[in-house]
Amino acid sequence: MPDGLGAPLFEPLFDRVALIGIGLIGSSLAHICRRKGLARRIVAADASKEVRTRVAELGFADEVAPSAAEAVRGADLVVLCAPVGAMGPIAREIGPHLAPGAIVSDVGSVKVSIVEAVAPHLPASVCFIPGHPVAGTEYSGPDAGFAALFHNRWIILTPPADADQKALARLSAFWTAAGANVETMTPEHHDLVLAITSHVPHLIAYNIVGTAADLEAVTQSEVMKFSAGGFRDFTRIASSDPIMWRDIFLNNKDAVLEMLGRFNEDLTALQRMIRRGDGDGLSELFTRTRAIRRGIIAQGQETAEPDFGRRAQEE
Amino acid sequence: MPDGLGAPLFEPLFDRVALIGIGLIGSSLAHICRRKGLARRIVAADASKEVRTRVAELGFADEVAPSAAEAVRGADLVVLCAPVGAMGPIAREIGPHLAPGAIVSDVGSVKVSIVEAVAPHLPASVCFIPGHPVAGTEYSGPDAGFAALFHNRWIILTPPADADQKALARLSAFWTAAGANVETMTPEHHDLVLAITSHVPHLIAYNIVGTAADLEAVTQSEVMKFSAGGFRDFTRIASSDPIMWRDIFLNNKDAVLEMLGRFNEDLTALQRMIRRGDGDGLSELFTRTRAIRRGIIAQGQETAEPDFGRRAQEE
Ligand SMILES: NC(=O)c1ccc[n+]([C@@H]2O[C@H](COP(=O)([O-])OP(=O)(O)OC[C@H]3O[C@@H](n4cnc5c(N)ncnc54)[C@H](OP(=O)(O)O)[C@@H]3O)[C@@H](O)[C@H]2O)c1
Ligand SMILES: NC(=O)c1ccc[n+]([C@@H]2O[C@H](COP(=O)([O-])OP(=O)(O)OC[C@H]3O[C@@H](n4cnc5c(N)ncnc54)[C@H](OP(=O)(O)O)[C@@H]3O)[C@@H](O)[C@H]2O)c1
Repeated sequence: MPDGLGAPLFEPLFDRVALIGIGLIGSSLAHICRRKGLARRIVAADASKEVRTRVAELGFADEVAPSAAEAVRGADLVVLCAPVGAMGPIAREIGPHLAPGAIVSDVGSVKVSIVEAVAPHLPASVCFIPGHPVAGTEYSGPDAGFAALFHNRWIILTPPADADQKALARLSAFWTAAGANVETMTPEHHDLVLAITSHVPHLIAYNIVGTAADLEAVTQSEVMKFSAGGFRDFTRIASSDPIMWRDIFLNNKDAVLEMLGRFNEDLTALQRMIRRGDGDGLSELFTRTRAIRRGIIAQGQETAEPDFGRRAQEE
Repeated sequence: MPDGLGAPLFEPLFDRVALIGIGLIGSSLAHICRRKGLARRIVAADASKEVRTRVAELGFADEVAPSAAEAVRGADLVVLCAPVGAMGPIAREIGPHLAPGAIVSDVGSVKVSIVEAVAPHLPASVCFIPGHPVAGTEYSGPDAGFAALFHNRWIILTPPADADQKALARLSAFWTAAGANVETMTPEHHDLVLAITSHVPHLIAYNIVGTAADLEAVTQSEVMKFSAGGFRDFTRIASSDPIMWRDIFLNNKDAVLEMLGRFNEDLTALQRMIRRGDGDGLSELFTRTRAIRRGIIAQGQETAEPDFGRRAQEE
């Protein structure tokens, strides 16, 4: 198939998939469910009336439910796709309405605090397997989603030690059919890994854009004009959804502060090298960092194509 | 014309353009000189025999000179395109061989230290107008260049207060014909602006990639796998040429340390917000940083297209 996502399944994996929260991730899941035939019925719910109306217009769900509680009735897969801070309240709302045997999962960017907030509200008759697709763009909302978002990306599942193995296999099959690679780990390890690969990078991107905005010696107009030297890429990262990222930092505090501590130690050392004019130390570090890049390209998580203004020139 | 660079000039702006140092920038200049007919003759020189051989093979120059001194003989425009640290020695070598009335410029990423290193070696009969095209990719060498590199990018010129205005106009016309927008400022201001828009962003990208590589709790393989969450973009920046960047930090020490000091102050405040759980403070900053992004897109220095693995999915 021209989109690289392969043919639809012969048999849907789930009867009724309920997606709660239809932003970038929720709408992308709806698209891929339809594209690959993963569900007999796709049901969408969202706290916002505006979003519900838009989802109905866009037509990528079979049904837009008036509430999360309505949406999960009879669903054999429920995926919470709302902001991290909303997961606990949603779990409390849907808990009494979940079908026995249902698989409940989520896509939140942190895991320990979501497990703590969600698990207590779920009946023992359902199987809760938290998840986080490591895929995204800087855009949000129901118009931002597309079927290929998870293609060749990783989904991290953090099943409890006693998780039902058949449910885990079914959820894994769902993500594999969506084009993702599945990895399992503990919620604690997830939060540490994502702190360094995602949360701290976002934090320092937000920080430097803030620093640049507050300078007196250099105007904002100059910062914008001359951003092609590197700054521009940080502004893209720092244009991600403020609420989502606030929630992430509030909910992964310890791991973020730990990784930020390491970052700061290393930056102090680098600062000292510059002050002392230690050219060998600088070029040693600058050479070493290339190996990681090569590994990422080899793993298919990036292309080797040069970046000069990101397509700006082709348009 | 399909490449967006417009028709060639009716009349070349210069008779003989000598490019000293044929890497990404030097080869891109040669390509655009030929593409737009900016010079009657393009002469290339490079310290490395290998590069000279390769330039001759690639054929984008009319002549490959055996030395910089040979290259500049009779040239009415000389552009130094070597690493920042090599500019002083090159100026000493070419000084005695420059034609009276020649314009000498450069493309180095820092300006104050280059002016200090180059100016003393140039005869009073030439006009020295330093420059820095704010354009680039993470690749280097004579194969990396292309004619459109400077298209819709800024070239910063830092003419001395008593610069010949006709020479400045001719050099500006050259860059304008290459597709660039010209801005002039002092070398000191240039170094401050670039410290925040380019040098500090590169430094912190190198730093976080180094931090990630040194962790024990998270493996390098995990860092690579899950890089799509934001880290990946930093690795691209941190794969830029180590020697070029070493030279930049050694030669723009004061401005870099000043901007890094601001960055650190702001990061400490952000860290405190996370520790205290100050959600309002976090989302205020995360919202404010979006305005800068919008400005950059409005100025044509970036597209608004979402970035999800940078074309990886199309290939
Ligand atoms: N974006 C990424 O790059 C990315 C990547 C991986 C994982 N994630 C995770 O995926 C989740 C969703 O992210 P997203 O980018 O898709 O967000 P989004 O585009 O902002 O969409 C979230 C949607 O959830 C709705 N919502 C909020 N509270 C709700 C509630 N109590 N019940 C039902 N719906 C509710 C929101 O409505 P309102 O508009 O009214 O608030 C919004 O429509 C987050 O947990 C995030 O951490 C995001
Ligand atoms: N790359 C960017 O993004 C960018 C953007 C704006 C400005 N700049 C500036 O442009 C300049 C060149 O950068 P680049 O990326 O084009 O570098 P590059 O690809 O590394 O090429 C530099 C070339 O200069 C040669 N060279 C070194 N010393 C020389 C000497 N004494 N005489 C003659 N040639 C010499 C090098 O030869 P060897 O291979 O033997 O060293 C190499 O072929 C630097 O000053 C940089 O600061 C770069």
